[in-house]
Amino acid sequence: MARELKATLNIGRPDEVGSILKRLRPYDQAVVLRRLDPAVQLRVFEVIPTAMAADIFQELEREERLQLLVAIGAAKAAPILDEMSSDDATDLLAELDQDHQRELLSLLRMEEADELRSLLAYPEQTAGAIMTTEYVSLAANNTVSEVFEQLRRVSREAETIYYLYVVDEQEHLVGVLSIRDLIMAEPDTRVEKLMIQDLVAAKVNDDQEDVARMIEQYDLLAIPVVDLTGTLVGIVTVDDIIDVITDEATEDISRLNAISGRAVDDLRVGAVAAARKRLPWLVLLLFIGILSGSIIASFEETLEAVVILAIFIPMIADMAGNTGTQSLALVVRGLALGEFKTEDVFRLLRREAGVGLILGTVNGLAIAVIASIWQQSIVLGFVIGFSLWLTLIVATLVGAIVPIIISRFNIDPAVASGPFITTVNDIVGLTIYFSVATALMVYLI
Amino acid sequence: MARELKATLNIGRPDEVGSILKRLRPYDQAVVLRRLDPAVQLRVFEVIPTAMAADIFQELEREERLQLLVAIGAAKAAPILDEMSSDDATDLLAELDQDHQRELLSLLRMEEADELRSLLAYPEQTAGAIMTTEYVSLAANNTVSEVFEQLRRVSREAETIYYLYVVDEQEHLVGVLSIRDLIMAEPDTRVEKLMIQDLVAAKVNDDQEDVARMIEQYDLLAIPVVDLTGTLVGIVTVDDIIDVITDEATEDISRLNAISGRAVDDLRVGAVAAARKRLPWLVLLLFIGILSGSIIASFEETLEAVVILAIFIPMIADMAGNTGTQSLALVVRGLALGEFKTEDVFRLLRREAGVGLILGTVNGLAIAVIASIWQQSIVLGFVIGFSLWLTLIVATLVGAIVPIIISRFNIDPAVASGPFITTVNDIVGLTIYFSVATALMVYLI
Repeated sequence: MARELKATLNIGRPDEVGSILKRLRPYDQAVVLRRLDPAVQLRVFEVIPTAMAADIFQELEREERLQLLVAIGAAKAAPILDEMSSDDATDLLAELDQDHQRELLSLLRMEEADELRSLLAYPEQTAGAIMTTEYVSLAANNTVSEVFEQLRRVSREAETIYYLYVVDEQEHLVGVLSIRDLIMAEPDTRVEKLMIQDLVAAKVNDDQEDVARMIEQYDLLAIPVVDLTGTLVGIVTVDDIIDVITDEATEDISRLNAISGRAVDDLRVGAVAAARKRLPWLVLLLFIGILSGSIIASFEETLEAVVILAIFIPMIADMAGNTGTQSLALVVRGLALGEFKTEDVFRLLRREAGVGLILGTVNGLAIAVIASIWQQSIVLGFVIGFSLWLTLIVATLVGAIVPIIISRFNIDPAVASGPFITTVNDIVGLTIYFSVATALMVYLI
Repeated sequence: MARELKATLNIGRPDEVGSILKRLRPYDQAVVLRRLDPAVQLRVFEVIPTAMAADIFQELEREERLQLLVAIGAAKAAPILDEMSSDDATDLLAELDQDHQRELLSLLRMEEADELRSLLAYPEQTAGAIMTTEYVSLAANNTVSEVFEQLRRVSREAETIYYLYVVDEQEHLVGVLSIRDLIMAEPDTRVEKLMIQDLVAAKVNDDQEDVARMIEQYDLLAIPVVDLTGTLVGIVTVDDIIDVITDEATEDISRLNAISGRAVDDLRVGAVAAARKRLPWLVLLLFIGILSGSIIASFEETLEAVVILAIFIPMIADMAGNTGTQSLALVVRGLALGEFKTEDVFRLLRREAGVGLILGTVNGLAIAVIASIWQQSIVLGFVIGFSLWLTLIVATLVGAIVPIIISRFNIDPAVASGPFITTVNDIVGLTIYFSVATALMVYLI
């Protein structure tokens, strides 16, 4: 398909490019375009209809569309922006620097520009920032047949027509009506008889995760967004919520694994950019690692007397880290999915203490037996077994408690991150191990 | 609300329980019920309408509804099951043991039981297993007004009426029509003029993740599911896909953090059940940890001569693990989101080699300087710095390569798991560290 497009452009039939692409859906159009050289991409964008260009733009990745936008130039980009739905246009503008943003906005119709400016003003990751203003609103005294009339007029423009929102004269949201109810009703029934008044709505400042949870819990296709006065200002549709859910999960995974930034970095990004996202955490962890080292250094005498103790350093460290990471992942995900309430904290901690006890006992016994036989020393077996037992109990609790404490300060608990918990638990484990060994040193030599 | 329900039951007005609960949405009804004692829950279920019971059942967690189902008894559970949409009924039945399943099915209407049996036959996590059979199908020669007639009849039963599926006489899927197109059309237009023939459909055996990706990429509200002959057999709706996306992300997080099972275990589960999900991995990792130990043991002479080398064991191990986990998370998530194609492998590995080089150089230099000053030995500084440099390069590549290899065998790459990569990288790092130290030992003593 990419080859076909290039050939069509080369034999000078640019008008046919649109009809070739039209056979595909926007997502697939973007896939094809991605395979073309930037110069050819640009020529394609010059000849296809504005509406198609807008659809493709919505499917491109952040980096891709920024490059393309700059290449196309503001004069040609403005009509494309005008065609995009308001939430996608806002996303795109938010990615631009101030100068490009201002230039593009100045080229739009006044009304459209004002709308986008007000959407841009909402803080990132809130309902206001992800909503679209292309919804259908009705008056309560409309009849069903009047609504059908209205739908025929506005249907093409609206983001969804499956939920219709009822507002009063001051644009306050007073009810919602599904197209299903509309179809079932008699033509002369008034909207007020059909609408549901007890509705679920998001506030403009609600976090996007909370909006996602409402849509998920109540199985909605869209949710209305109101401002502080109860005025309807937009809607968030389920397809945008799917993106929010995917992004938030990716963000959790990134943070749990100590990668900076809001998402796992684009696989197409270069080595320097990718390294920049991981380096800060690693350097921080290097310095914390020096702490582990200084703990061992402080037990230098013990270690000199019984060099064989060094054999179990990585095992104590790893097992402490692994156990902690397990609890951490559980709690972070539970918090993210909202499955977890404040009143559950003590029950969870008691549970995790029990888990730690079981994990510690099984692993501690196993390593005690193995170490005794391997190193021909029952005392060494006891030291390592007892230390691992105690370490696993503490490490399990640390992995559960730290994210809970962090989330109390309204910080995303995933920043606690696996490597961070691992390093903390290393210090705990090594301190226990060398303290026990030092206490029993006379029997070890 | 929970208290209000209990009071109403106690003063002997069971018929009012339904009207109290009716004020809430099903999700919130489930929240209220969850706060009641099992005995009271049971009494509530005995007095509320079957349709409400079915709605609440769909919102309960797996464990909760299993307990409730057994308590209610098959005779009363069957009508509830009958009311549920077929995908949810199938989910519920799949959770039961063979005996309970057979008992419940025998109490249903023959037709319903047969349908559920055929749905139960699809392998877990496929389109067939998550689809519902409550869709609207039309004939191509129907007119728009006939379709509206039909919709008024079946609207309440159908899972969605926003997409209507067009089938031929053999029930083969031939087109799709949105309610939007229907509203815009003249009453006497035939469906065949309006329908889109080039449609996206899932096959019954498609993995649920692939179905999710189709819905996500093409911004659909539902997708039709066809069998091998192209016969329409069901639809998957976007609300079920949201659950799939959430579950798959949780599964990735669990696996990356070495927790068995398909999801982070329920926070309400007891300590023994929770420990059972984490123990197998930990014991495996304990044994792999003995490998790290035996590497150190094999360098015992070096260690005895220069005990201070032990100080940097945890740092080498941790940094190797952390770097590997970062690459791992990136690749696993990229694979899960389908952002990553086979042809990208070499580009990715080259990129990760570059990242490893940067991470290794920065951290290696830092620790070389710190160790030289701290331990007053430039040679020791060189040993640890050079070892960390090499370790980070190798560890970054290991973290990227292992999940790619695993996914080639069609195994979920997340099973590679952070702790597993960590332990492998420990062994790599410690071998490098002690080999370098042994080579330079004469200068260290």
